[in-house]
Amino acid sequence: MIENSYYGQELHGPYEVHDIGDLALEEGGTIRKCRLAYATFGKLDPDGGNAILVPTWYSGTNKIIEQVFIGPGRALDPGKYFIVVVNQIGSGLSSSPHNTPAPAGMGNFPRVRIGDDVRAQHKLVTEKFGLKSLALVVGGSMGAQQTYEWAVRYPEMVKRAAPLAGTAKNTVHDFLFTETLVDAITSDPGFKGGFYASPAEVREGLLRHAKMWAVMGWSTEFFQRNRHKALGFSSLDDFIINFMYTYFAPMDPNDLLCMAWKWQRGDVSRHTGGDLREALRRISAKTFVMPMSSDMFFRPADCEAEWRLIPNAEFRPIETIDGHLALFGADRDALGQIDKHLGDLLASKV
Amino acid sequence: MIENSYYGQELHGPYEVHDIGDLALEEGGTIRKCRLAYATFGKLDPDGGNAILVPTWYSGTNKIIEQVFIGPGRALDPGKYFIVVVNQIGSGLSSSPHNTPAPAGMGNFPRVRIGDDVRAQHKLVTEKFGLKSLALVVGGSMGAQQTYEWAVRYPEMVKRAAPLAGTAKNTVHDFLFTETLVDAITSDPGFKGGFYASPAEVREGLLRHAKMWAVMGWSTEFFQRNRHKALGFSSLDDFIINFMYTYFAPMDPNDLLCMAWKWQRGDVSRHTGGDLREALRRISAKTFVMPMSSDMFFRPADCEAEWRLIPNAEFRPIETIDGHLALFGADRDALGQIDKHLGDLLASKV
Repeated sequence: MIENSYYGQELHGPYEVHDIGDLALEEGGTIRKCRLAYATFGKLDPDGGNAILVPTWYSGTNKIIEQVFIGPGRALDPGKYFIVVVNQIGSGLSSSPHNTPAPAGMGNFPRVRIGDDVRAQHKLVTEKFGLKSLALVVGGSMGAQQTYEWAVRYPEMVKRAAPLAGTAKNTVHDFLFTETLVDAITSDPGFKGGFYASPAEVREGLLRHAKMWAVMGWSTEFFQRNRHKALGFSSLDDFIINFMYTYFAPMDPNDLLCMAWKWQRGDVSRHTGGDLREALRRISAKTFVMPMSSDMFFRPADCEAEWRLIPNAEFRPIETIDGHLALFGADRDALGQIDKHLGDLLASKV
Repeated sequence: MIENSYYGQELHGPYEVHDIGDLALEEGGTIRKCRLAYATFGKLDPDGGNAILVPTWYSGTNKIIEQVFIGPGRALDPGKYFIVVVNQIGSGLSSSPHNTPAPAGMGNFPRVRIGDDVRAQHKLVTEKFGLKSLALVVGGSMGAQQTYEWAVRYPEMVKRAAPLAGTAKNTVHDFLFTETLVDAITSDPGFKGGFYASPAEVREGLLRHAKMWAVMGWSTEFFQRNRHKALGFSSLDDFIINFMYTYFAPMDPNDLLCMAWKWQRGDVSRHTGGDLREALRRISAKTFVMPMSSDMFFRPADCEAEWRLIPNAEFRPIETIDGHLALFGADRDALGQIDKHLGDLLASKV
């Protein structure tokens, strides 16, 4: 356990924390008194039909989901829907390496899979909120991985699904990219096998990790058209230090690694002995597959190939030069496209 | 200076070494008794009209150029042309950090630019071979950067130019990618500011560097279609260790960094006060711009934008899923396309 003021109500609140009890993990470990941090927006209809679940992405929390996607007049409108944003395990707000007491925390935190998150979230929404169905599950990147897992694991419950910039089964190439992110952190001598005294001791690793995110997270066009300058940074160095590194520097390295391990291994075909076609056939949700056109690791072509295997799905790519990190919401036009598609999806009969 | 048996006649020969004398560098340093290693194929015509120059890419030497591009019946046919393959400064065969005596070697080796290479090569081909013109300058990646530099700096001498998988002015995004490669090496505690006793002391950094090359060097499709397995590797791990790492592990870290620094800053617009349009207008060579369709860092779109600024040029992209590393020649179809285009170019009247 390590004090880290980054993960708190001040920066990410308001959020609530619910203890779902002990969570036995697919890889064999157990998270004792597993806590899920979540934020809700809007009110649940008496018939329970207006609930939307949004799982979080790598390094993100409920706060950025709120800022980028939720609001009056948006597709995710709290005036119409009861929206639950759940922080994934390892996010730093829910049970995570840095906030788990010794000896189970830090470098000893057990391996977690996307399926563990989704089972934990299922407990939360059924036991805490009594939900019997979800009008929509939507998430970006690792949130898309969780969205697919929801739709395959609990098809009777998920009415609509919108995996945004993510896949149902991670690619070899994306696995490898994520491995280089992991290496950037673990290779820092200050990492000490996960038993550092503060993230500052891993600052060089976190800086390398931030730079590698800058390479793969945006796109060539993003920099070529000086989008980094348009966002208020005077040079590439300024952008790297004062945006990318500033973003990641306060985060807990073990927390990031917990999420990265899950991300690498996201794969709904674990339900069907490795048969992705069979797994995706289980989805009954009306599904919109929504990649970012310039994404360098959750590539549109890979998302499109999965879309073809989903029974009731539409392929709705988002045109943007912001790459994967269009999820950050800096491209207003991309947000408009996302709202349009999510609006269409929510309006569709199921 | 450091003993490294990787850089020798056994693996890369036969090649010759020519001393061009002291080379004053654009950044202010001097390489004393600068040596260029080169290999020649074929015979020079009496009129000197059949000379082709091929500069090398990052980590490559004359040997891979020979293996991938030169041979009877190929576009670069030694039966028709006098082909000079010149190893760039920092390649490990020409003057490089590892083979330069103390105190000027290792971490003290001076900064070199693409322009320095091209001036050195100009001395070689004019003084050693008495060449007055080059029927073709062709190179891939950093070889393309040198090709552009040749065509802009010595337009009267370069009759045809074929920059393959490279740009005239490096992009911000590619600069950043290369920076992460540099970081992978320099962050290894064994690197010791460039004064390690052997590359083996930097093995962890070189492994990270190899993995990052695997992410950006090939393409998502390459792995998705199991090209790494088709090349004889049983898994991703096997491919990383026994191909990518095996390739880079014996190389000298300072040599790689010398080349990386040049690569990051390749820019013919240094001749024209930053005006790329004006610089490319100086090219009189008939030019074929030949990107790899799936290249993740020398992107076709960036090459195409430069092609539009060159007076007498054609855009001839190579369709391949091998990404940038189609240069390695594993995609035979891509090689066929390259030969076709180079054949057309060599047949064109200038």
